[in-house]
Amino acid sequence: MDTRFLGVLGGMGPLASAHFMTRLTLLTPAARDQDHIPTVLWSDPRVPDRTAARLSGEADPLPWLLRGLRGLEEAGCAAVAIPCNTAHGWFEPMQAATRLPILHIVEATADALRRGGHGPGPVGLMGTAGTLAMRLYQQRLEPQGWQCITPEAEEMQNLVTPAIALVKANRPTEAYAPLAEAARRLGKRGAGAVILGCTEIPLGLQAGPLPAEVALIDTIDALAEAAIAWATGQQDQGQSQPEVGPLS
Amino acid sequence: MDTRFLGVLGGMGPLASAHFMTRLTLLTPAARDQDHIPTVLWSDPRVPDRTAARLSGEADPLPWLLRGLRGLEEAGCAAVAIPCNTAHGWFEPMQAATRLPILHIVEATADALRRGGHGPGPVGLMGTAGTLAMRLYQQRLEPQGWQCITPEAEEMQNLVTPAIALVKANRPTEAYAPLAEAARRLGKRGAGAVILGCTEIPLGLQAGPLPAEVALIDTIDALAEAAIAWATGQQDQGQSQPEVGPLS
Repeated sequence: MDTRFLGVLGGMGPLASAHFMTRLTLLTPAARDQDHIPTVLWSDPRVPDRTAARLSGEADPLPWLLRGLRGLEEAGCAAVAIPCNTAHGWFEPMQAATRLPILHIVEATADALRRGGHGPGPVGLMGTAGTLAMRLYQQRLEPQGWQCITPEAEEMQNLVTPAIALVKANRPTEAYAPLAEAARRLGKRGAGAVILGCTEIPLGLQAGPLPAEVALIDTIDALAEAAIAWATGQQDQGQSQPEVGPLS
Repeated sequence: MDTRFLGVLGGMGPLASAHFMTRLTLLTPAARDQDHIPTVLWSDPRVPDRTAARLSGEADPLPWLLRGLRGLEEAGCAAVAIPCNTAHGWFEPMQAATRLPILHIVEATADALRRGGHGPGPVGLMGTAGTLAMRLYQQRLEPQGWQCITPEAEEMQNLVTPAIALVKANRPTEAYAPLAEAARRLGKRGAGAVILGCTEIPLGLQAGPLPAEVALIDTIDALAEAAIAWATGQQDQGQSQPEVGPLS
């Protein structure tokens, strides 16, 4: 009964976790319940804010992340997906603390870019201020030939950051317009595709018509596809995991 | 870190579990991640089909249900919600096997009927053939003054049963028309409200406009409300849990 459970370290935020579970289910080829992937979701929304920790030195989320990983290990999980981009700023200490392989959301996104035919070149990147400051995407995408175009400081302050907070406050419809505008502007600056590098962003964008001017890469879907590939035993061919050093 | 986790025994089906997590999040009064309810979801879709077990004597789901409960206990959960109506046919042996209180989906639905102003009288009931055969709703609602009107055998065979299977096969849009028709017919037969007594049914119905002829009671939402009441310490006033004997 206990083989090959997928562990999901979630709650960051809880709506993104629930949406990940929905997309994981809908993207899995299945004709009946029993074809789906056994999963344990550890959704602890009390994990201290990842961006505040990185930018303002507020409460450290790492002990909470490690507690969740231990819970997933004890539950019998065999791999872990984390539907929160900013939490990947603690990827290396998390991976060092668990024997379970953690599917990296940026590598899953790189696979999604390739599947979408978006080869090396400029890509847009939206995310929390924490994700951008930590250069989580640049660090792994630039060695593979993508250059990341990010919103300007004024756009982060007036569009992206408040919109992410609106989704976390259960107000996704109000988040739509600023997110769509930020995505369009990245397209105008030459991005061949825009990475929605915060799991709240697709939840806001789906409250209205998707901006049609530029292709969007949904990192929740990318991570779900990586998890499905892992569960169906294709993880060796699919997701690549280049070694990177710890963040300074 | 470990107090008052809600345990969710899910995977039956996995889309209903994911939808429960979404509704639990959206219905919780919250302004930021940290206001939401810490939750562990045990989603094992391999649990043998509950209706087939009850009607045809196929594989017994109980060992799988008890395995999930043990996992939720070990994870530190303090109460359990089960977003699958038919699984409540095993409520008594599950409750006897765990020290955690299990929130009963039928009692949560009774609370939702009362909140909606649907006092004693005829109510419509849709569900799996297993749920109807076990009289899960009748057993707890009739002593409280509601009389359940259920689809006729022909309607179960041609409308409700195939529609539930379509949702489980990731084809909710095809499930819409037969479910809407079945709900309308119950309204015409005198139901003051129709209980969507299978967690797949609201997923099919939301693929089109809700039938406007009759009020609908979504049992996923009812269970989420009961869980939120538990988490906010109001469970003593809200959910009532009358004693009922074991099923024959």
